[in-house]
Amino acid sequence: MKTDFKNVCQDTGLTEDCGVFAAYDFDGGDVASVIYYGLFALQHRGQESCGIAVSDTNGPQDSLKDEKDLGLLTEVFNAEKLEKLKGNLGLGHVSYPSEGGRKRENAQPLVLNYVKGTLGISNNGSLTNAKELRDDLSYKGAIFQTTVDSELIGYLIARERINNSSVEAAVLAACRQLKGCYSFVVNSPRKMIGVRDPYGFRPLCIGKLDNTYIIASESCALDTVGAEFIRDIEPGEIVTISPEEGIVSDKTLQISKPASCIFEYIYFARPDSVVDGVGVYGARVRAGEILARRFPVDADLVVGVPDSGTPAGYGYALGSGIAHGNGFIKNNYVGRTFIKPKQSQRERAVSVKLNVLKEAVDGKRVIMVDDSIVRGTTSAKIVKSLREAGATEVHVRISSPLFLHRCFYGTDIPSEDHLIAHNRTVEEIREIIGADSLGFLEIEDLKEIVEGKVDFCDACFSGNYPDK
Amino acid sequence: MKTDFKNVCQDTGLTEDCGVFAAYDFDGGDVASVIYYGLFALQHRGQESCGIAVSDTNGPQDSLKDEKDLGLLTEVFNAEKLEKLKGNLGLGHVSYPSEGGRKRENAQPLVLNYVKGTLGISNNGSLTNAKELRDDLSYKGAIFQTTVDSELIGYLIARERINNSSVEAAVLAACRQLKGCYSFVVNSPRKMIGVRDPYGFRPLCIGKLDNTYIIASESCALDTVGAEFIRDIEPGEIVTISPEEGIVSDKTLQISKPASCIFEYIYFARPDSVVDGVGVYGARVRAGEILARRFPVDADLVVGVPDSGTPAGYGYALGSGIAHGNGFIKNNYVGRTFIKPKQSQRERAVSVKLNVLKEAVDGKRVIMVDDSIVRGTTSAKIVKSLREAGATEVHVRISSPLFLHRCFYGTDIPSEDHLIAHNRTVEEIREIIGADSLGFLEIEDLKEIVEGKVDFCDACFSGNYPDK
Amino acid sequence: MKTDFKNVCQDTGLTEDCGVFAAYDFDGGDVASVIYYGLFALQHRGQESCGIAVSDTNGPQDSLKDEKDLGLLTEVFNAEKLEKLKGNLGLGHVSYPSEGGRKRENAQPLVLNYVKGTLGISNNGSLTNAKELRDDLSYKGAIFQTTVDSELIGYLIARERINNSSVEAAVLAACRQLKGCYSFVVNSPRKMIGVRDPYGFRPLCIGKLDNTYIIASESCALDTVGAEFIRDIEPGEIVTISPEEGIVSDKTLQISKPASCIFEYIYFARPDSVVDGVGVYGARVRAGEILARRFPVDADLVVGVPDSGTPAGYGYALGSGIAHGNGFIKNNYVGRTFIKPKQSQRERAVSVKLNVLKEAVDGKRVIMVDDSIVRGTTSAKIVKSLREAGATEVHVRISSPLFLHRCFYGTDIPSEDHLIAHNRTVEEIREIIGADSLGFLEIEDLKEIVEGKVDFCDACFSGNYPDK
Amino acid sequence: MKTDFKNVCQDTGLTEDCGVFAAYDFDGGDVASVIYYGLFALQHRGQESCGIAVSDTNGPQDSLKDEKDLGLLTEVFNAEKLEKLKGNLGLGHVSYPSEGGRKRENAQPLVLNYVKGTLGISNNGSLTNAKELRDDLSYKGAIFQTTVDSELIGYLIARERINNSSVEAAVLAACRQLKGCYSFVVNSPRKMIGVRDPYGFRPLCIGKLDNTYIIASESCALDTVGAEFIRDIEPGEIVTISPEEGIVSDKTLQISKPASCIFEYIYFARPDSVVDGVGVYGARVRAGEILARRFPVDADLVVGVPDSGTPAGYGYALGSGIAHGNGFIKNNYVGRTFIKPKQSQRERAVSVKLNVLKEAVDGKRVIMVDDSIVRGTTSAKIVKSLREAGATEVHVRISSPLFLHRCFYGTDIPSEDHLIAHNRTVEEIREIIGADSLGFLEIEDLKEIVEGKVDFCDACFSGNYPDK
Repeated sequence: MKTDFKNVCQDTGLTEDCGVFAAYDFDGGDVASVIYYGLFALQHRGQESCGIAVSDTNGPQDSLKDEKDLGLLTEVFNAEKLEKLKGNLGLGHVSYPSEGGRKRENAQPLVLNYVKGTLGISNNGSLTNAKELRDDLSYKGAIFQTTVDSELIGYLIARERINNSSVEAAVLAACRQLKGCYSFVVNSPRKMIGVRDPYGFRPLCIGKLDNTYIIASESCALDTVGAEFIRDIEPGEIVTISPEEGIVSDKTLQISKPASCIFEYIYFARPDSVVDGVGVYGARVRAGEILARRFPVDADLVVGVPDSGTPAGYGYALGSGIAHGNGFIKNNYVGRTFIKPKQSQRERAVSVKLNVLKEAVDGKRVIMVDDSIVRGTTSAKIVKSLREAGATEVHVRISSPLFLHRCFYGTDIPSEDHLIAHNRTVEEIREIIGADSLGFLEIEDLKEIVEGKVDFCDACFSGNYPDK
Repeated sequence: MKTDFKNVCQDTGLTEDCGVFAAYDFDGGDVASVIYYGLFALQHRGQESCGIAVSDTNGPQDSLKDEKDLGLLTEVFNAEKLEKLKGNLGLGHVSYPSEGGRKRENAQPLVLNYVKGTLGISNNGSLTNAKELRDDLSYKGAIFQTTVDSELIGYLIARERINNSSVEAAVLAACRQLKGCYSFVVNSPRKMIGVRDPYGFRPLCIGKLDNTYIIASESCALDTVGAEFIRDIEPGEIVTISPEEGIVSDKTLQISKPASCIFEYIYFARPDSVVDGVGVYGARVRAGEILARRFPVDADLVVGVPDSGTPAGYGYALGSGIAHGNGFIKNNYVGRTFIKPKQSQRERAVSVKLNVLKEAVDGKRVIMVDDSIVRGTTSAKIVKSLREAGATEVHVRISSPLFLHRCFYGTDIPSEDHLIAHNRTVEEIREIIGADSLGFLEIEDLKEIVEGKVDFCDACFSGNYPDK
Repeated sequence: MKTDFKNVCQDTGLTEDCGVFAAYDFDGGDVASVIYYGLFALQHRGQESCGIAVSDTNGPQDSLKDEKDLGLLTEVFNAEKLEKLKGNLGLGHVSYPSEGGRKRENAQPLVLNYVKGTLGISNNGSLTNAKELRDDLSYKGAIFQTTVDSELIGYLIARERINNSSVEAAVLAACRQLKGCYSFVVNSPRKMIGVRDPYGFRPLCIGKLDNTYIIASESCALDTVGAEFIRDIEPGEIVTISPEEGIVSDKTLQISKPASCIFEYIYFARPDSVVDGVGVYGARVRAGEILARRFPVDADLVVGVPDSGTPAGYGYALGSGIAHGNGFIKNNYVGRTFIKPKQSQRERAVSVKLNVLKEAVDGKRVIMVDDSIVRGTTSAKIVKSLREAGATEVHVRISSPLFLHRCFYGTDIPSEDHLIAHNRTVEEIREIIGADSLGFLEIEDLKEIVEGKVDFCDACFSGNYPDK
Repeated sequence: MKTDFKNVCQDTGLTEDCGVFAAYDFDGGDVASVIYYGLFALQHRGQESCGIAVSDTNGPQDSLKDEKDLGLLTEVFNAEKLEKLKGNLGLGHVSYPSEGGRKRENAQPLVLNYVKGTLGISNNGSLTNAKELRDDLSYKGAIFQTTVDSELIGYLIARERINNSSVEAAVLAACRQLKGCYSFVVNSPRKMIGVRDPYGFRPLCIGKLDNTYIIASESCALDTVGAEFIRDIEPGEIVTISPEEGIVSDKTLQISKPASCIFEYIYFARPDSVVDGVGVYGARVRAGEILARRFPVDADLVVGVPDSGTPAGYGYALGSGIAHGNGFIKNNYVGRTFIKPKQSQRERAVSVKLNVLKEAVDGKRVIMVDDSIVRGTTSAKIVKSLREAGATEVHVRISSPLFLHRCFYGTDIPSEDHLIAHNRTVEEIREIIGADSLGFLEIEDLKEIVEGKVDFCDACFSGNYPDK
């Protein structure tokens, strides 16, 4: 599972936009609570702000209520606030800081009034034509109160709704104008609509709990609330859910070659999620097994860097026959409001978030498995800590290929200049991080980790952007 | 590492009183920040309230400042508050709810004015003669503003200081009146004094960072701030630290047979701590190895219940040769302010805190290793989840003996009636929790897990209370 | 001065939408602080939410920062937040709950991005064609995130800006579409524009402090920050202020017969403000003098009901020669978060907000002067309190005519059914409130209180709505 | 009524320690709510912290619950917290910062456990032998967790309780050891005890509401909750209230010549309170009348400086026949968390808290009446403001004698050096504050303002300290 730690201080340092969870109880029961628990399972996808909006489909059209703010779920919600969110159709959101920075206005779900009543939108993604859309809408007199893509999507739906006979038709017409990555849920007064862009960059799936239909970013959120997994929404599919017609699918936007994000398997998604038919845990274990095959080394212990390196470490151990153990203790109390050590303290080795388990690694030849190296500074620090704890050799294995290119689809891989792999050989990287040996996955291995079942985007490794 | 989850919803459900961290910079630098980071490493020992008090040993005698409140460190402190705590002698505390319940007044360190100036006290323990002491002091005209033992200790020190020539002599005289479990630090205006009761129930150790001396509950807190481990304070030892005399030891109170708490090794302490010369991680691994030897079974996978079951699981795998892997995903975002699911939701299988990794266990014969069973309800729930995820067999191994007796020394093991092992055979317990087989450590195994290096208290298993 | 008390528990119970304060420092200095102090002087105009937005006219076009929330100024702002609002062009707002209720989204200033950059809007008023505008914009594809008029105004400006060569031209074009009451300030990236609707229902004036230009709802806010009063913005005038051109006036929208709200003089405005050339204090004193002339009575003491009844009480004393004294003590600590007494407690005479000064009224024939009677319940309660304190007679004089009609221009006078004067004679009202005698101003007296200098709207008394 | 403004920025600048309100419902009903409303009427006596503690006299002896913190009543309490304070015997407190500064620990009521159960103490006063008592108790082994006198009082009661057969006897024995000023309520498990020191420096009175007995600092608090005034507690009286014996009085401590604080009449108490049989409002009016007699001057308008100067202004007008009007508008929204203007802004005339009513004073010869001059700076500022607003003459009249001496009984009149009257003639003071004429009350006038009914302390004017 991905956590604060990874995002704040580990080498990966990658963040993603959001997690989405929506629910519609056809029997009229309140859904705020199930959304709250569902969002907990998705908190790893966004820790900057969160929110829930609900409406009563049997009440007046403007019955929508919402609660959202900067902060974690435990910070934004309390029992009293949750209790007030009465309604059987709702949606929630957890998000990372968007480009405009830490602004309360950017918290989602976005709640709009438009020609047909209220509209709630929760989106995970990053439009590549956001600026063009914003400019175009501005030139038509639009005003913007946030900097999130959901506001653009809302505008397009509102405008298209005027010339389309249904909200789902308006959603389709709006999607035709969107480029890049988007996975969103729209709640119009009486319908819950889930959409994945034609490439299917970000996951989105459907579940069911009694007579409540759910759309969620990851299947682990369905498990958490005790819901049954029905199926993934397909890339390019628009799914409309209503009591009158059940689940209705529109695949107009589908293209021949989708490209879901391979990094969901490597790092973003929770290991207990199954994305597009492939279990995330298994994908990571297989990555470790491949590494064991490609970069064997004589050693005493395999340790994964928690949390996302752990399954790959297990895979390496399985593949190599070398013992697999804990090498680190992670401090899970370090959260959003932790006061960061000053530079002088960091040099003095204040390492609150991760401590090497000296007893486990002392005197051992260690293979340290992590999911990726972005800038290299964190890897260097961990290698150093292992050596100080008595590791006689530290061999680093990375369960993804070399990061060489920016991502335009919702992850914040930095520009080329800041990537350690840019213009450097693996040997040069090894030297920088101070490892005895270093091995990365090859791009061609990625197919194996998803067992060939998924068409994926590997642009950050290959530079092959699917929409260019 | 112990976490919220364990305390709130797992079978163990055990809590302990506190964590202590104190620092004295002989060079006059501020210590609030190092205490803050040190307490982070001890947050697992107490999540109800926390505090830091500091004074300037070169300033006026009443320069002591403090900040404490209900909540986690991330909730109670911000950069501005930490910045205001100027001073080179300080102490901190994290605590669990005491008997008097969730009261702000009970937050520690306790800060007192007494005949010789200010006195700060942070204690981890539970006096068995608290009521007697309180009554006795009351009959002499004492007033009490809290319900914590530190106030009693403070009173005794204050009273003894009048007839003793030094604060350390007063501490010794006060300790002669204390019974039961206590591990505390007292900061008098210019001395830092660390004390462990004669049995040494709770750990306490000394470290050093440049010219700053530290006393902490566990060695992991020293690692966290980059300090060097000097040594444990011994059971029955009073250590006085001052720039004038360095570390001065008084062993008057020592007894021939100490009895440090075996459960620190099994569950309380962080695995990366070394307590009284024995590494906690290693102790847990050995417990697993013993279980593998005592209760072998043909299976496919060993999984530890996170977090404290993990090392024992690894040990079982080592001992049995069976593969060791992740079986669960724990949600680390579930904290103190999480809104608990209602009964109806729990029955519907809302399981926010722990999710079985279906992909890992499906179709497998699983050995599930946990540290203890208190009431049995959580174990039953986890066994059921494993089966629902496809485990064909679930064999449970517990890395401690059967809980049969209450603890009077700072852990809240419930009274006999609530212990599942009370008046039941292992076979009956196995049936209740729904396991295919079940094995516990024997009391005689405990010596092996600490490699015979430590005299320990095992009263909760054996009923042999060391002070009776 | 109007206060919480009046709005919450006195007979008037009237609220208004807002107070506006904007500042532009041509020398580039920060204006957030002057706006903060200016808003304090306008807090009586709105206590539900408040906000400040500033931008740097020499910085990038998107440099606008804002801070707004539910609560009083003392609750929303602290020194740290105020310090962060760097910029030399800014505007602020204090507001009452709008129709949509207590929603954070409705806090102003509204901050928008539109085709020409950022736009900040603070408005005081109530559009009578809000629904029509909202519907019309919706049918053109607009989306709404608030329920305040400022969002409609922003939309219209944004749409008109496309076909107009300047923001002030767009504001003019937008205003042509607005009906009803509005007094707003718009900050486009480099201009500060103040607008009053053609009737001039709500006040708005211009001031100057060194090289900082100010637009404020009332002149008392200029006094508060030490600024010089320049002039009122005229009804129907659009004033554009910029370093390049100074103050530029556009009077295109002016009509022959404006109608500023007479109730600003009677109740809303602070007595130390001068509105459209007429001092509010003097207007109230004159109202009292007229009452003395029209309804003389033999009595011992004149008492004004604080705070707005005080000057009229003084006027009555001046006009009648009867002594004027304090009759009540008001509790100024009763604020927004005061816990209201339960019905049972109110019946027991819990009167936290106002206490009769028994010593002043005991044994006296009292003339009690208040500004208005809406529902009558509060007047009845105060009359009763005076009698219980020993007043032998209580003569009530009201410094406004009978309330008979709803207001559509920003005050929340309730519908006719709830007005005590509806379908009742003065004698019937007197009986209900328990007074010995009762007198109201006549509508024809209103001209005298503004000394014939102002054309005003008296629709709430006369039913003559100026725009109908 | 005294307010923030006076304390923070006016010339008086005097503060007092506290307000006390206790209630005991013999019928067993909850009293927290009546205490809350009662404290509101006393908020002017202390704005730094507040608290309420209640217990159920029919429940267990340790049923006491409390809620207290830094802040105003509206900040510390909400409906939920108030609701939780169940119990029929309770006491509350509002306080100013004590010497130890702004510390949460110092918030009262102090809640103690002592030999006989729980003890709650709320005190208004200042012991002159606090240091001696503290030292003495320290030498007997006491520890102190606060810096307030209530802790000393609690200690003495606890110690005396051991050798006395009742709590009231212990209170008496404790009081024998106290010197200086104290007015406190002690709630022992089943009795409510009110005490005034022998001089009766601070007020304390008894009231009754149905079957609930009340002890309060001022009678205005009784009015506020609808209670009937029974009588003042006399100087040197100990009143014990219980269902068994009703009101029992002990006058052992009484002395022949009490000395209640004359400044309660001049400034501290609310005008609607009656203290020791003399109405505060009337006392202030009489002070104004005396000034009119002693310092007549030809003028057009008398204005009182709000809030405490207003009744004296009214008295001056009565005595002189000159018109009395409002001269100032006070901003009641300026509270504890107001961000103070910087020096540069103050020089620029930022005057948020008080604005002269130009329309009222322009062109007039003004007599400005205030209650006292401490340092002179505020008076000078107000005189200047009146002149800038057009006053042609400004005559200052002060409704108290010259401040020449410190106070040791609970008010913070600064040391002689900071008093403008120290070593200066009235003429020199007049010149400093810029008035056209200046007059103070004479010490012999004080008898007249209390109509000779009260023996009072005038040490701050005369230097005659009653206990020396």
